[in-house]
Amino acid sequence: MKRIILSALGLLTLSGAYAQLKPEKMTPESSELWDPEPRLVTPGTLTGNLLGTTAPSDALVLFDGSGLDQWVSSEDAKSPAPFTVKDGAMTVAPKKGGIQTRQEFGDFQLHIEWRSPSEVKGSGQGRGNSGIFLQGIYELQVLDSYNNRTYANGQAGSIYKQTPPLVNPVKAPGEWQSYDVIYTAPRFNKDGMVTVPAYVTVLLNGVVVQLHTQIQGTTPYVGRPINKPHGKGPISLQDHGDLVSFRNIWIREL
Amino acid sequence: MKRIILSALGLLTLSGAYAQLKPEKMTPESSELWDPEPRLVTPGTLTGNLLGTTAPSDALVLFDGSGLDQWVSSEDAKSPAPFTVKDGAMTVAPKKGGIQTRQEFGDFQLHIEWRSPSEVKGSGQGRGNSGIFLQGIYELQVLDSYNNRTYANGQAGSIYKQTPPLVNPVKAPGEWQSYDVIYTAPRFNKDGMVTVPAYVTVLLNGVVVQLHTQIQGTTPYVGRPINKPHGKGPISLQDHGDLVSFRNIWIREL
Amino acid sequence: MKRIILSALGLLTLSGAYAQLKPEKMTPESSELWDPEPRLVTPGTLTGNLLGTTAPSDALVLFDGSGLDQWVSSEDAKSPAPFTVKDGAMTVAPKKGGIQTRQEFGDFQLHIEWRSPSEVKGSGQGRGNSGIFLQGIYELQVLDSYNNRTYANGQAGSIYKQTPPLVNPVKAPGEWQSYDVIYTAPRFNKDGMVTVPAYVTVLLNGVVVQLHTQIQGTTPYVGRPINKPHGKGPISLQDHGDLVSFRNIWIREL
Amino acid sequence: MKRIILSALGLLTLSGAYAQLKPEKMTPESSELWDPEPRLVTPGTLTGNLLGTTAPSDALVLFDGSGLDQWVSSEDAKSPAPFTVKDGAMTVAPKKGGIQTRQEFGDFQLHIEWRSPSEVKGSGQGRGNSGIFLQGIYELQVLDSYNNRTYANGQAGSIYKQTPPLVNPVKAPGEWQSYDVIYTAPRFNKDGMVTVPAYVTVLLNGVVVQLHTQIQGTTPYVGRPINKPHGKGPISLQDHGDLVSFRNIWIREL
Repeated sequence: MKRIILSALGLLTLSGAYAQLKPEKMTPESSELWDPEPRLVTPGTLTGNLLGTTAPSDALVLFDGSGLDQWVSSEDAKSPAPFTVKDGAMTVAPKKGGIQTRQEFGDFQLHIEWRSPSEVKGSGQGRGNSGIFLQGIYELQVLDSYNNRTYANGQAGSIYKQTPPLVNPVKAPGEWQSYDVIYTAPRFNKDGMVTVPAYVTVLLNGVVVQLHTQIQGTTPYVGRPINKPHGKGPISLQDHGDLVSFRNIWIREL
Repeated sequence: MKRIILSALGLLTLSGAYAQLKPEKMTPESSELWDPEPRLVTPGTLTGNLLGTTAPSDALVLFDGSGLDQWVSSEDAKSPAPFTVKDGAMTVAPKKGGIQTRQEFGDFQLHIEWRSPSEVKGSGQGRGNSGIFLQGIYELQVLDSYNNRTYANGQAGSIYKQTPPLVNPVKAPGEWQSYDVIYTAPRFNKDGMVTVPAYVTVLLNGVVVQLHTQIQGTTPYVGRPINKPHGKGPISLQDHGDLVSFRNIWIREL
Repeated sequence: MKRIILSALGLLTLSGAYAQLKPEKMTPESSELWDPEPRLVTPGTLTGNLLGTTAPSDALVLFDGSGLDQWVSSEDAKSPAPFTVKDGAMTVAPKKGGIQTRQEFGDFQLHIEWRSPSEVKGSGQGRGNSGIFLQGIYELQVLDSYNNRTYANGQAGSIYKQTPPLVNPVKAPGEWQSYDVIYTAPRFNKDGMVTVPAYVTVLLNGVVVQLHTQIQGTTPYVGRPINKPHGKGPISLQDHGDLVSFRNIWIREL
Repeated sequence: MKRIILSALGLLTLSGAYAQLKPEKMTPESSELWDPEPRLVTPGTLTGNLLGTTAPSDALVLFDGSGLDQWVSSEDAKSPAPFTVKDGAMTVAPKKGGIQTRQEFGDFQLHIEWRSPSEVKGSGQGRGNSGIFLQGIYELQVLDSYNNRTYANGQAGSIYKQTPPLVNPVKAPGEWQSYDVIYTAPRFNKDGMVTVPAYVTVLLNGVVVQLHTQIQGTTPYVGRPINKPHGKGPISLQDHGDLVSFRNIWIREL
C-alpha cells in the first residue's frame, strides 16, 4: 500500500511537461505482460579454475575436456578434428589444420577459454596466434597480446582486420583467458547485399572489448571485408602454427 | 580488359560472384590499423565464491564488502546509505529507503551480485523484490523468480514493465546470482525527443537475458514508459521491503 | 596526380595518435570493392501533383489509380477489396472493412500517399482516422492531426500506442500527404522471443518522424505490445469509419 | 492470491500462449502517451522541377539558388565559398577548392540535389566526381555512375571506400538527382574509441541505397577508415575537378 502511495507522489515530482496524463486510468496490471513465460534454464556452475561457468542447461557442450566428438577437420568435414586433447584442454596440432563444429548456428551465445603457450616465441602476429571463426567466417582474433605490440585490429579481442578491442585486458602467456561472445547473424537479400548486418558483443576476461560491433564482412589476411550470403555456420578454430589451447567451450542458440 | 581477365581468374580461386577484384594490389599491411593502441586493463580475478571477477583495474569499485563509502541515500544524497553491511554483503534495510552511487555514469559495464532471502515469504512481486536503476532511472528487475510465477516483464532479468528476459536462469533463493550489464545511454534532442535510444545487454548468471534491448523510457509501476531528457546518472538500488543483499559491485565507464 | 599528393599531405595534418601507420604499404586499390555490382534501378518520376515519384523499376506497384488488383479484403482474402476507386484514389468504404495486399513482404521500402476528408468531422481519434499495418501487424497511424490534439503516440506519424513522431509535419485536411517507410522485419527464436527486433524509419511529407525506431510488438487499441512470431506479411489499410483516401502506393523489397 | 486466480481465468478466455492476461484491467487510455506534444513543422512544397520539397519550416536553408551565404571555403573558413552560382544552381569551380557550411551539425536530416555534367568526359572515378562530407569527415560519394562501372564502394550512393549502395538508381548525366540523408553522429570515449557509431540512411532519387549503415570511420582515398573523436561538424562539398552542380539544399537538426 505504502509503495503505491509513494508511486503516486513520485509522479508529482516529475516536471509537468514530461508527465503522462490520465494516470487515474491506469492500473499496475495495464503494463504487465504474462506470456510467453521465459523458458527455465539452469545456469552453469563455477568449478575448478574455470574462468566461466560450465554449460547452462540449454547449451550445447562443445568441449568439456573429454574429447573432440563435436568437432571435425575444417579441411575435410569427414575427417576427425586434428587437435590434441590432454589434461582437459585441446591444443592446436601445428600444420594439421583447423577444426570446426559438426553443428551449425545462427544467433548464439558462445563461451570459450583459451591459452597461449607459456614459452614465448616470436612477436607480433607470430606469437600465440589462433582464431575463432563465428559461423565459420568472421574471425575473433586469438593472440598472445601481452606486451606484444601489433596492429590494433589484429590483437586479442579484435574482429580481425576490422575493429580493435575497446581495451586490452589480456593476461600473461600460459594463463587461461575467456571469451564470452554474443552474436546475431546477418541477413542478406536476393542481390547478395546485407540488409541486417551481423553484430557482436565480446567480453575478454570479463571486460567488454566489442560493443554491439557491426561485422563488415569477411576477415581476410589480405584484402578488405566482403559479404557473401550464407546461412547457419559452424564455430571454427584456427591452426596458425602456434600451440594455442582451448577449454570449457559451450554455445547456446539465442 | 586486363582487369576483367584477372577477375575471371580470381573467380577460380575465390568463391564466385562475390570475390574482390585486384587482390594483387593489396598487401597484408593495407588492412592494418595501428592507432590508437587499446589501453591496457588488468582483468579481475575469481576469488572465493564470487560469481564474477573482482574489479578490473580500470573499474570503480562500488562495493567490495567493506563499506558503503561509494553510496548515499536515494532520498537524500547528503545522508548516508541506509543499507546494512555484514559478512561482505550489503542488505536492504526495509523502509529505510534505497541507495545510489555518489558518482554518475554515462555508457558503462556494470557487474553486481545479488541474493534474495533463503527464507521464502510471499509470492509474485512480493518475494525477494529489489531493483537496479540504470542511470537512476531505468529498472533492471531483481526478484526471487525461482518457482515464482509473475508477469514476464516483471521477473528477474526483465527491464521492468518493458522487456521480459529471453529465458529464466535464476537460482534458488539464498544463492548468489550475478548480473553483467552493458549499457549505452540515450541521446535527446532539444524537443526532449529521443534520437539515439539507450540500449542494454544483460547476462544473468552468465546467460544472456537482454540482447541489445532498446530501453523505451522510464519503468514505472503504474503507467507506461516516458522519456525525459537527462545526463549522466547514478546506479540506484531499490528498497522494496525485502531483505535482498548485494556484493561484488564494480563499474567501468565505456 | 595532384589529388594523391594532397592526400599524402593530409595525413601529415592528422594528429599523430590517430594516424594510420604504414600508408606507404597501401594503394588506392586496397580499399576498392568491386563485386557484387549494385543492381540497376530506374528511379520513378515526379508527375502530376504526386508527393513522391512513381514506382522505381524494381518496385511492385500496389496502386496507381487504376484498380485494386493487388488488394483483397482483410476480413476474407478471397473477397475483393471493398475500398472505392475514383479519380485516381482509393477510399475507405466505411463499415465494409479494411484491405490488404495479395502479396507478402519481409524487409521493404514503401511509398504511400493519403488524404483525410476536407470536411472535418469529429475530433481526436475520431477525425480522419485510418492506419497502415506493416506486415499486417504493426500500425503506422493515419490521422488528421492538423490542429487536432490527441495522445502523441496516436497522432499521424506515430507507431500506434508506442512511439510518437519526432515532430508533427502534417498538412491540412483535404491535402495529400506522403509516407516513405523503410522497414526491416523482426527475427524470432524457437521460444517465440525476439532476437532481432523490427526497426522502422518513416518520413511524413518528407520530414523524418520515426528514426530507426524499434517496434515493440503489436499495436492494440487496448493493451500493451505483445510479440508473436510471424513470417512475411501484407500491407493492410484500415477501415476506421472515416473517408480516408490513398494513392501512389508502391513497395520495394529490400 | 486473488490476482493469481484472476490470471488463471484470464488464460482461459484469451487465445493461447501469446495472449496478454487481464485485459479487463486495461483501458484504451492505459497506453496513451500525451507529452511532450510533437512540435509542429510546416512541410516544404514541391515546386518547379525540384526532386524534393523546399525546406520544411524548421530546416536551415543551405542553398535555395540565390547565393552562398551559408558557405565558406573548406580550405580557409574566412574565405568565401569558391563555387559559382548560376541559374539557381551552384557549381564546382575546378581547382578552387571545396566548400563547407558556416554552421556545424550533430544528428541531422539533409536534402541535397546534384547534377553531373551532361557532357561526359573521362570514366570511372574521373567522371562527374564530387562528394558530400557528413560532419565534414564522412564522404557520401557523388559520381556520374550512369553506365560507368567503377568499384561498388566508390559509385554514387556509396559511403566512399566503405559501403556500396544497395542498388544503383542513378540518372543520366545532365539530369538532377536527389539525396535524402538521415544521420546520427558517433559517440567517442576518453580513449578515442567509438562507443556509439555513426549511422546513416540514404535515399538516392527516392530509392534506399544505405540502410542504417554503420560508418566505419574516415573515408580516405588511400588507406582504411580510422576514427578520431570530434564534435559537431559542417556539411562539405568536394572539388574533385569536375563541373558538378548542386541545388535545393536544406538541413534539419534531429
